[in-house]
Amino acid sequence: MLRNNFHPAMENIKLSPIVSISEEVRSKENLFKNATGKDFIKFQRGEIDFATPAYIVDAAKNAMDEGKTKYPKSGGEQVFKEAILRKLERFNKAEGLTTDNIIVTYGGQEALELVFKLFHGEKTGGFAPVWSCIIENMVPYAETNFIQAPLGKDFSVDFDKVEEVIKEVSLFYLNTPQNPTGKLFTKEEVVKIAELCAKYDTFLLSDEAYERITYDGKSHFSPVSLMLENTISAFTLSKTYSMTGWRLGYLVTRNKHITELAKLTDYTQTAGVTTFLQYAGAEALNNVEEEKKAVTAMLKEYSLRREALYNGLKEIDGLEITKPDGALYMFPDFSAFIPESIKGRQREVYVYNQLMENGVAVVYGSCFGEYFTGNLRFSFSGVNVDQINRGVARIRETLQR
Amino acid sequence: MLRNNFHPAMENIKLSPIVSISEEVRSKENLFKNATGKDFIKFQRGEIDFATPAYIVDAAKNAMDEGKTKYPKSGGEQVFKEAILRKLERFNKAEGLTTDNIIVTYGGQEALELVFKLFHGEKTGGFAPVWSCIIENMVPYAETNFIQAPLGKDFSVDFDKVEEVIKEVSLFYLNTPQNPTGKLFTKEEVVKIAELCAKYDTFLLSDEAYERITYDGKSHFSPVSLMLENTISAFTLSKTYSMTGWRLGYLVTRNKHITELAKLTDYTQTAGVTTFLQYAGAEALNNVEEEKKAVTAMLKEYSLRREALYNGLKEIDGLEITKPDGALYMFPDFSAFIPESIKGRQREVYVYNQLMENGVAVVYGSCFGEYFTGNLRFSFSGVNVDQINRGVARIRETLQR
Repeated sequence: MLRNNFHPAMENIKLSPIVSISEEVRSKENLFKNATGKDFIKFQRGEIDFATPAYIVDAAKNAMDEGKTKYPKSGGEQVFKEAILRKLERFNKAEGLTTDNIIVTYGGQEALELVFKLFHGEKTGGFAPVWSCIIENMVPYAETNFIQAPLGKDFSVDFDKVEEVIKEVSLFYLNTPQNPTGKLFTKEEVVKIAELCAKYDTFLLSDEAYERITYDGKSHFSPVSLMLENTISAFTLSKTYSMTGWRLGYLVTRNKHITELAKLTDYTQTAGVTTFLQYAGAEALNNVEEEKKAVTAMLKEYSLRREALYNGLKEIDGLEITKPDGALYMFPDFSAFIPESIKGRQREVYVYNQLMENGVAVVYGSCFGEYFTGNLRFSFSGVNVDQINRGVARIRETLQR
Repeated sequence: MLRNNFHPAMENIKLSPIVSISEEVRSKENLFKNATGKDFIKFQRGEIDFATPAYIVDAAKNAMDEGKTKYPKSGGEQVFKEAILRKLERFNKAEGLTTDNIIVTYGGQEALELVFKLFHGEKTGGFAPVWSCIIENMVPYAETNFIQAPLGKDFSVDFDKVEEVIKEVSLFYLNTPQNPTGKLFTKEEVVKIAELCAKYDTFLLSDEAYERITYDGKSHFSPVSLMLENTISAFTLSKTYSMTGWRLGYLVTRNKHITELAKLTDYTQTAGVTTFLQYAGAEALNNVEEEKKAVTAMLKEYSLRREALYNGLKEIDGLEITKPDGALYMFPDFSAFIPESIKGRQREVYVYNQLMENGVAVVYGSCFGEYFTGNLRFSFSGVNVDQINRGVARIRETLQR
């Protein structure tokens, strides 16, 4: 008999429930349109509706024309690593680094996966709520036990709870600005978390995918600027440059043993990141003038969406919402709309199901860990202001029925 | 004290000695040129000196222009998987497959890595000699014990030895045409190996990177055409289309549980293969007319190189060589040139070092497993006929001194 059961680390990876949600939307949207004449409003997506800026596309084309189509250099092309280094100095105020502190990866995703793998079989931890991919993918694949330190209802940090987790684990995962809350951790919070990690010889993995997407003049603080050997940062070009499908990211740490291991493992998994795309990545970071235009235009639009969504949702009586300072998400609490008669796991999807029936797709809170199961995640990365306004009106109707 | 030791699977991956050899060449070639006025002849490289055909580059540019820059679909874009399916039917004579039998990967590399990972911690095996990356990367990362069944001196198969290994292991690795020998396993050999695997419920992993590079009218036979659930094939576009730096490959198996696990693991590692590159991959396979032109031109040149290298080397007295039927390598035996006074591991690099001193870079046999340590691998993927002739003359001089 041919076996049907393989390595548990692979067998235990779960399909993200967000994928199932998008599939549910696909199966329902035509029926909904036929019945009501209306389109689905898709707040569930993490995808971005901007095109990749032309200067980056052109750089990729040029690199192809120049024959940069041969095997990539293990750990990353020097030209891209130098561009990253300058960006780390310019934007993240990181000093004393060299290109040996950097490994180019397939998106932030591979950077995170490589780091979780370092701590295979050990205890890891992080805040709740936590990006769903950590608990569905990274944790089972690295066969680690992930302990959650819950943020407060307003997403404030309880440092006693954080310290309890940090002293238990080998690796602490921080995501700032955070998915799903939009919380931008302050410099003081990041420093204190990094210092707590240093105190217990715990490594800090800082996921900074949304570092450039911050609002109201606030800015991201990266632990990479601290002179600590126990911090590791994962970056991606996906969100800043609307390059989700390009799969370009990088990992930075002052610990060169870790970059060496990441380099060998990245090589083992993929033999390195597509050569000519790294030249485009270098241009994305180096061309400060074009970057400024692209990022400014993007942030202007995201700011409008954020205002529209926040202002709409906060007017709904009973809904509790914290205005996000970064990223592309809001994570309001809908607990007040769940009748007490609804029990168990049905509570987690009660409002979600109601909204879905009325053509509004969101992600339910239990996708983001054990806490905040009464919350729903709204992404405004793929909906315009008009769609947001129509979506909010539909939510109000649904809840006030 | 901050730790300096992480997951053994990562700590145990080794840098390929072929990389060190290329670094040694880089460090020596200027000195050599200054001293002798001559260039190094680089037979050590697996890199290809052809440009990617223009029709494929154009397809990548068009896909970028069409905005195929969003997150890839998990497991691969439908358009690429359909092109792969048609290629499997047309070229590999594989029937009864659907796109659910296919997972798009980052080169053949990721396909192999995903399969080895399925058998984490178990016994695996394959022929000796074996592609260096299997023993340096795949085996330690999957923490498997790899048992080698040696080919004969003329690279013939001893089926008793093969059966002994197959009955011991969960996964048997076959590479045809083979790196480093250039051996093209016959249809009869492949069928017999697949049937032995089926007999013992062992999975067969068939690495077919060089499937299109065969000579003298001989052709590759793929186990994917057999109606067996226990075979898994890894393919890449790297060699056929001179796309080494693009990192496009795929895995095919009739076992859909395996494609499901590979899909989730690939997603975990990288979040999928760069979207617009998959459109270029589809065009590479679909455009049969352009493909024929490109592959014909490439094979014509490789055939000339193969003749030049084989005819040159076989004239050297004492050297034993088998003419390869496929791939881009020859693996002659130089044992006769190693004096008996040289002992232990020094024997493995004795001829290699002599050649390196005289400006000829090759790869020594112990990079390819426990057997054939008196052989040296010559690649003709990156040297033209003139370089080959000069290289052979230099080898003759060196050995006959």
